[in-house]
Amino acid sequence: MTEAKRLTAPVPPGGTIGILGGGQLGRMLVLAAARLGLKAHVFSDKSDSPAFDVACAHTAASYTDRAALARFAAACDAATFEFENIPADTAAFVAERVALSPGARSLAMTQDRAVEKNFILSLGLQTPAFAEISTEADAGPAVSRIGTPAVMKTRRFGYDGKGQAKIDTADDAVEAFAGFHHAPSILEGFVDFAFEASVIAARARDGDFVVYDPPTNVHENHILRRSTVPSKLDAAQVSRARMIAHRIADGLDYVGVLAVELFVCRDGSLMVNEIAPRVHNSGHWTMDACLVSQFEQHIRAIAGWPLGSPERHADAVMENIIGEEAADWHKLSESCGALHLYGKKERKPGRKMGHITRLGPKTLPQI
Amino acid sequence: MTEAKRLTAPVPPGGTIGILGGGQLGRMLVLAAARLGLKAHVFSDKSDSPAFDVACAHTAASYTDRAALARFAAACDAATFEFENIPADTAAFVAERVALSPGARSLAMTQDRAVEKNFILSLGLQTPAFAEISTEADAGPAVSRIGTPAVMKTRRFGYDGKGQAKIDTADDAVEAFAGFHHAPSILEGFVDFAFEASVIAARARDGDFVVYDPPTNVHENHILRRSTVPSKLDAAQVSRARMIAHRIADGLDYVGVLAVELFVCRDGSLMVNEIAPRVHNSGHWTMDACLVSQFEQHIRAIAGWPLGSPERHADAVMENIIGEEAADWHKLSESCGALHLYGKKERKPGRKMGHITRLGPKTLPQI
Repeated sequence: MTEAKRLTAPVPPGGTIGILGGGQLGRMLVLAAARLGLKAHVFSDKSDSPAFDVACAHTAASYTDRAALARFAAACDAATFEFENIPADTAAFVAERVALSPGARSLAMTQDRAVEKNFILSLGLQTPAFAEISTEADAGPAVSRIGTPAVMKTRRFGYDGKGQAKIDTADDAVEAFAGFHHAPSILEGFVDFAFEASVIAARARDGDFVVYDPPTNVHENHILRRSTVPSKLDAAQVSRARMIAHRIADGLDYVGVLAVELFVCRDGSLMVNEIAPRVHNSGHWTMDACLVSQFEQHIRAIAGWPLGSPERHADAVMENIIGEEAADWHKLSESCGALHLYGKKERKPGRKMGHITRLGPKTLPQI
Repeated sequence: MTEAKRLTAPVPPGGTIGILGGGQLGRMLVLAAARLGLKAHVFSDKSDSPAFDVACAHTAASYTDRAALARFAAACDAATFEFENIPADTAAFVAERVALSPGARSLAMTQDRAVEKNFILSLGLQTPAFAEISTEADAGPAVSRIGTPAVMKTRRFGYDGKGQAKIDTADDAVEAFAGFHHAPSILEGFVDFAFEASVIAARARDGDFVVYDPPTNVHENHILRRSTVPSKLDAAQVSRARMIAHRIADGLDYVGVLAVELFVCRDGSLMVNEIAPRVHNSGHWTMDACLVSQFEQHIRAIAGWPLGSPERHADAVMENIIGEEAADWHKLSESCGALHLYGKKERKPGRKMGHITRLGPKTLPQI
């Protein structure tokens, strides 16, 4: 099959979707693909990946194992990834062999916090003030410019609060930078937001675009605790959130589902906190409250299928099941919610083990 | 693990559910198990079984291959089947090694139409008049007793209209019986029903019992075309349908999901057409219109988990995608319905390839 054909013809039922990464997001992508009659091949560097248990085929190998990657790409009709921290070289190598969505540009823009923030600003959108820290000498001036309190974050490979430190003084900044082993970082101004929200959207190969109702999100210890729809956003904010996602997706010529995490400021304005080039924890409620979930939507987009309706038929509260909370699986299974467990072998503090979504009759966002 | 322990302790997340049969019902059971963090091992005698593509493990072997069955049973923490025509010996062999639900009694009662009908009558429920035909000499008297038009059906192994013949004369009966190679059969009186319905219910190990709203069903060429909820049953009929399912489930000491196909007569009475000791095509809409689908409900029951809520949050129309209709998958994917494709390699006339469920705001059954 030529690359042109791969890029334009939709993957027919029976075709194979390749997924780089084997965590719960990969697992739920596999299940969504299966519902559409598509097979999945999961590539992960962890031999006990939860997504392996449901995939038609899997490869357990290093992301730098080119022979394994080449075999994986050859076995797939379209490919994607479940996390944005796959090495750029890996993505490029796979993309040369099979249609990979989202593409290299989306990955490059979202793997580095400084690049991502400059991209957000270039679209005319707001994001918290930031200063780049490349050497120890940058720490003092950054603190002077941004002020305190602030947050230092490594430019790459951070998630769930990993690679972050709270900064109150210039000394804190020097210390935190040393703690990051002088990895290129940014200092980000502290935003005294009213609450957090996110917007989950999908863009098809032909530019078609759909958005789910944005949820309000609550984090605990930097980990998502709960997402609620309808959110506390008013109608104008919902419309602005949609516009933000649309502008970012078009700006990246994006294909697939993307999530934009938002700070909702006390003056009502929306600031982009982060872009996730993938399905997102704050969109898990779509599995039970929408006809087409974010996972199916992503599979549809990357397989070249028409997007489905993002409409929700119910109000929803999605709560994560974290670490030892999963030991209560029997009690959780008694509750009147949709229970999802990820098949992870070991419970560890902070580890996302599952989630539960409670539904209620659909109400409209407050106006 | 002792058999007693197997029978009483629920299968914890990470445990393995064994499924005999690898068609679309098995596939959807695997997907439901995965959602709960359970693994699946599928046993089928067809090497291209759709359920293999999503199962953590599979065995392709004959249902009489005892070594393979023993290995399968040893690998599972609980087992079930997706079709009622597995050989009784196979079920008994597996049941000696791992908790098999529904049990041998349920299977025995539903594998043979004559036994099933006598069981239904013994519960004080109605079923169409019938006469047993064991030899050619039984044909004439059967036609005299039942009258015409009537339907001859083999006692065993019939589905989707296979093993059935319409009978207008005693000669027809003799001919049909010969056509069935003199397999033990029944002659069933023709019921001039108003419409068809079914009731899908689940019973847990501890006797807990839940019922889904019964759908109206429309068949074409003996194959289910469409199921609609709410049905055309009035409130009293819905309540009677629930009672029928409850009495049958208790009578079988049933564990799992069962379906009861009903004829709704012109006088408003309900006759039991058939009992299916498994998840059922007319319950597929529960995947999209209920928090807990019939597939998850079955997994919960056989794994010893608490049953979930059978409440539906939407009206639903489920339409099967049969044979060549699946060639239109791209057009079907554009429609505002929840699309399910089963991953079957070949389209054949009458073959169930997928289904699509359209949802609407929830209304109550007519009163």
